[in-house]
Amino acid sequence: MGRKQTASRHIVKYRMMKGAEAEDDVAVEYPLTIVLNGEEWATVVCTPSDLEDMVLGFLAAEGIVRFPAQIQSLTIDEPGGFAYVETEQRQSVPKGDVMKRLIGSCCGKSRHIYFLNDAKTAKTVATSLHIPAEDCFRFMNRLHEMSASFRQTGGVHNAALFSPTDVVVARTDIGRHNALDKIYGYCLKHRIPVDDKLIVFSGRVSSEVLLKISKIGVGILLSKSAPTDLAIDLADELNVTVVGFIRGNSFNVYTHPHRIKGLNFKGGRSQHGHRHDIAHS
Amino acid sequence: MGRKQTASRHIVKYRMMKGAEAEDDVAVEYPLTIVLNGEEWATVVCTPSDLEDMVLGFLAAEGIVRFPAQIQSLTIDEPGGFAYVETEQRQSVPKGDVMKRLIGSCCGKSRHIYFLNDAKTAKTVATSLHIPAEDCFRFMNRLHEMSASFRQTGGVHNAALFSPTDVVVARTDIGRHNALDKIYGYCLKHRIPVDDKLIVFSGRVSSEVLLKISKIGVGILLSKSAPTDLAIDLADELNVTVVGFIRGNSFNVYTHPHRIKGLNFKGGRSQHGHRHDIAHS
Repeated sequence: MGRKQTASRHIVKYRMMKGAEAEDDVAVEYPLTIVLNGEEWATVVCTPSDLEDMVLGFLAAEGIVRFPAQIQSLTIDEPGGFAYVETEQRQSVPKGDVMKRLIGSCCGKSRHIYFLNDAKTAKTVATSLHIPAEDCFRFMNRLHEMSASFRQTGGVHNAALFSPTDVVVARTDIGRHNALDKIYGYCLKHRIPVDDKLIVFSGRVSSEVLLKISKIGVGILLSKSAPTDLAIDLADELNVTVVGFIRGNSFNVYTHPHRIKGLNFKGGRSQHGHRHDIAHS
Repeated sequence: MGRKQTASRHIVKYRMMKGAEAEDDVAVEYPLTIVLNGEEWATVVCTPSDLEDMVLGFLAAEGIVRFPAQIQSLTIDEPGGFAYVETEQRQSVPKGDVMKRLIGSCCGKSRHIYFLNDAKTAKTVATSLHIPAEDCFRFMNRLHEMSASFRQTGGVHNAALFSPTDVVVARTDIGRHNALDKIYGYCLKHRIPVDDKLIVFSGRVSSEVLLKISKIGVGILLSKSAPTDLAIDLADELNVTVVGFIRGNSFNVYTHPHRIKGLNFKGGRSQHGHRHDIAHS
């Protein structure tokens, strides 16, 4: 993947009431159209890196494949902006079905899931992983250290998969979901077990981000930013610990705090009878 | 629209090496499915406010309608999360076409447009508006002042339409595009001329944001954050002035700086022969 992730543009910088022409690095935004078994399936606007992993992760997240062997061929036409994918089972994937609304609440995983394909692929996470509270700061600092592109251009999201000791894989993208798809694809390709891993993320935690985390199968999500109410409710039901607003020497634990050791608080039992199930009280 | 935009959740706050249970306000995330002439058309995940404007703006941005009179009825089922729209011309809108890749470069507006529907609806902006450099700071500060929800929950984007003197309409959403769609719908409904207006925006400027600005028809975009290379190239071709990184007493002008007065710089002519056309040099 030789494509550059930043590009130079000629701009006017205004500082101290004076303008000056300057060269500036900005994030590259690259449209990649996925052609699945001969049919245009989706166009992803992304940072042009790790494209194969991203396509694999996206296809897995949408339930098209479950593991890499189900893909017969994956060819990236980088100059043209196309990814050609042939799958083993050449099922027809109706266009628009990816984003079809789920009517009813019979998916058995969460009453908060609203897309049909998410109901098929979102998993209730099973993990016995827990980490010390101090690691929330340590891992977030590691993410910042690795995020050279963000400091350079100010326009990308960073995500990294961590073991309890250090980073396993870190990915960058202008799209929040793409960064997670790149990690998902990497894990699938290299058969990396994820039940003893966590994900550290620079962006906000929307329901889509939370669903992606549950599809990857990771039980702890650390974020610099805030989750939405829907993301919290999904995390509660899908058994994901969400730690947000990790800044300075403070953070918030939104769901399942039992996985964060050393919180030093006396939690009461919630209405669900679990000490850790605090989201809906 | 009585739905609340923030929700309270019971969390654990960790401060100074100590956890404590607390109530915290988070941004509400609300899935709204648009049913167009009896067919499911798209699901938008949004902040539940100004839903009619958002649907109208979204339909206009996607080229389904050009003005409100083309909509025969628009009914919001708020508890269910559905918007039912009947249009005058009951054209069938093929699912998936909204995001169909544009093949070829014959749209005549920009060689950087990659979606078919954008090629139909993105406009080259015509405006004679210009503003003093100082107004970039003044308008951005006004946006911050108005953004109570952002300070409260840290999870939303803010956008506002400004005249050269003050704010006309300000909108908030967890989705960057939704905030702009809400403004677009408001302008269409109230027949507000936009060629003498600008938009101030809290989020990053992606190609999708830039295309939305051009569809609304606004010639100046002020942002706190960074644009991508594709957004800059589109802005250059669609005649939109993009000012980014408005922070403290500095900002960057990425395209068409002639609309910002008092930059006090000696610009040379670019290869296109225009003093203001700096993006590609």
